[in-house]
Amino acid sequence: MDNLKGFTPLSKLGEFGVIKHITRDFELKQPGSLVGIGDDACVLKFEENRVLVTTDMLIEGIHFNLIYTPLKHLGYKAAMVNLSDIFAMNAIPRQILVSIGISAKFSLEHLEDLYEGIKLACAQYDVDLVGGDTNPSLTGLVISVTVIGEARAEDIVYRNGAQDKDLICVSGDLGAAYLGLQILEREKKLFQENSNFQPKLEGYDYILERQLKPEARGDIPKLLREINVKPTAMIDISDGLSSEILHICSLSKLGCKIYQDKLPVLQETERVAEELNLDPITCALNGGEDYELLFTASVKDFGALSLQPQIHIIGHMSPSEAGTNLLGMNGETIPLRAQGWNGLNPHHHLN
Amino acid sequence: MDNLKGFTPLSKLGEFGVIKHITRDFELKQPGSLVGIGDDACVLKFEENRVLVTTDMLIEGIHFNLIYTPLKHLGYKAAMVNLSDIFAMNAIPRQILVSIGISAKFSLEHLEDLYEGIKLACAQYDVDLVGGDTNPSLTGLVISVTVIGEARAEDIVYRNGAQDKDLICVSGDLGAAYLGLQILEREKKLFQENSNFQPKLEGYDYILERQLKPEARGDIPKLLREINVKPTAMIDISDGLSSEILHICSLSKLGCKIYQDKLPVLQETERVAEELNLDPITCALNGGEDYELLFTASVKDFGALSLQPQIHIIGHMSPSEAGTNLLGMNGETIPLRAQGWNGLNPHHHLN
Repeated sequence: MDNLKGFTPLSKLGEFGVIKHITRDFELKQPGSLVGIGDDACVLKFEENRVLVTTDMLIEGIHFNLIYTPLKHLGYKAAMVNLSDIFAMNAIPRQILVSIGISAKFSLEHLEDLYEGIKLACAQYDVDLVGGDTNPSLTGLVISVTVIGEARAEDIVYRNGAQDKDLICVSGDLGAAYLGLQILEREKKLFQENSNFQPKLEGYDYILERQLKPEARGDIPKLLREINVKPTAMIDISDGLSSEILHICSLSKLGCKIYQDKLPVLQETERVAEELNLDPITCALNGGEDYELLFTASVKDFGALSLQPQIHIIGHMSPSEAGTNLLGMNGETIPLRAQGWNGLNPHHHLN
Repeated sequence: MDNLKGFTPLSKLGEFGVIKHITRDFELKQPGSLVGIGDDACVLKFEENRVLVTTDMLIEGIHFNLIYTPLKHLGYKAAMVNLSDIFAMNAIPRQILVSIGISAKFSLEHLEDLYEGIKLACAQYDVDLVGGDTNPSLTGLVISVTVIGEARAEDIVYRNGAQDKDLICVSGDLGAAYLGLQILEREKKLFQENSNFQPKLEGYDYILERQLKPEARGDIPKLLREINVKPTAMIDISDGLSSEILHICSLSKLGCKIYQDKLPVLQETERVAEELNLDPITCALNGGEDYELLFTASVKDFGALSLQPQIHIIGHMSPSEAGTNLLGMNGETIPLRAQGWNGLNPHHHLN
């Protein structure tokens, strides 16, 4: 990307040309999106439903590395991580706003790739792009995404609603996204040491896709509605399972017991962890960026939940005095720890 | 800010400590703010009103320079420029979300200053902080603000509603914020050439305040309601009067005539322009960052509007064939031009 030869510099189109160009294919599909891009603010309509808003910033060198992140994937991921927050409230995403800061090394074609990814993510859930802004940046790329969702008041699920004895469930599988990042970092390092080096990414397809193209689990709230299960608490896994269950425990004023042998870790994830001399359980607990949903549900829903291959019952809530623990393979009790500011994941949410 | 001695590094408090600390004084005041910071998304309630959303990113070195921008002012400004967009829709701001990227050179105390400014801006309009996130940044400071507003459907004013012959009005005065920036840049340069140099900022109070601590004109929509005037089109002046009136003209499919002698330029602004060898009219037309409101209104409202000292009638809309022109002091017609991508102002909105 250091050479703009053959590409269109952003300056050629001018400010409004760029905006018009990159947003030309975005149509408004939601009946609630009354006015999108083009005025001082978008105008939305929600009738009597609740409105949910979440925002997240992705910063070059912190949340992504352009050496191995295609811009289209980056746009897709930036949208997905925010959609994930709306699904974690048991709500439905409706609109998205995207602000970016881009340095002069980016051409119009780069910006098109980025928005292509955003568009793909939006199309998956009929989410409308309704605003944002585009700014020059002196240094790296910054993407700030805001997603607006909608839910009936009675459908919203918070982090603080877990009850003692509730089942703890997680969707999909854990740890793969973190290992994907480790493989990318390993190959980047080898490449930087020797520019003739050809990165070897074959055989790592699944974990790389989990890192580069995560999918928000919009299917899970839908599935839960179908099987008539309303979670008592829910959160999405961006910082790692440990960190997220500790949020639910602390806000619900309860403890928890997680069973190590119930953690959904794929064989492929285990294989790569072994290759990298990492403990797959630590990856599952603290790796983060899985964007799976972690939720609690009443014991009475055990039957319905245990039939779902995409849902894993990994433990249960307990009185707070019992602590927040992992029960190991040999019956040992290991206190769960959240990763701190300098932990594996640099991402810090206000919400 | 290069030395953190005596300050509290962010790492000391850890992720959630920092978030708790900086948001501890923010209370929810709006009845519509049901849940603020602390879950995956905030939850808001708007009944049958329309919801308006705007977002804007401020990037270090592009939109602000920390050499001469106190962090408290920066926080205040970041909030104000977004509130301004909501007022420009004739709506009332209710909630704000703030995402930041901060490099390691910032301490907890710096972050406190920034949020102190945000808090001050919010307090002025009873706006609730309901979300955002805090991220490390490898380079400069980035602030992305989203503001959510509310309006009755029939009250919203768009950019495209101007009618032929409508009066063109602007609040307050123009050009000062741009000149404030020029003075700050001049003093910075002198300081960089000689570090013993004492920046001379006395006597520039007004223009500096316009640059460093702009005020969104929430009073103007309120005033217009009181005098029973509903603008036909409205926009806030972030990129300069020329650029903004051209938006209204293009979206309303009309032309305009602005009278140079009607442009509200204060004597102080003229004096500084002269000192810097700049044309005060060019500063008023293209300087930007005034955050005044530019609106059109029916000729029948002339009487009511002309009585308001904070509102200046500067011209009128015309058929599009008549073009978009400034009528100069000697009766000469000068076509209005918008500043482009490389113009005076680096700020580019999708909305």
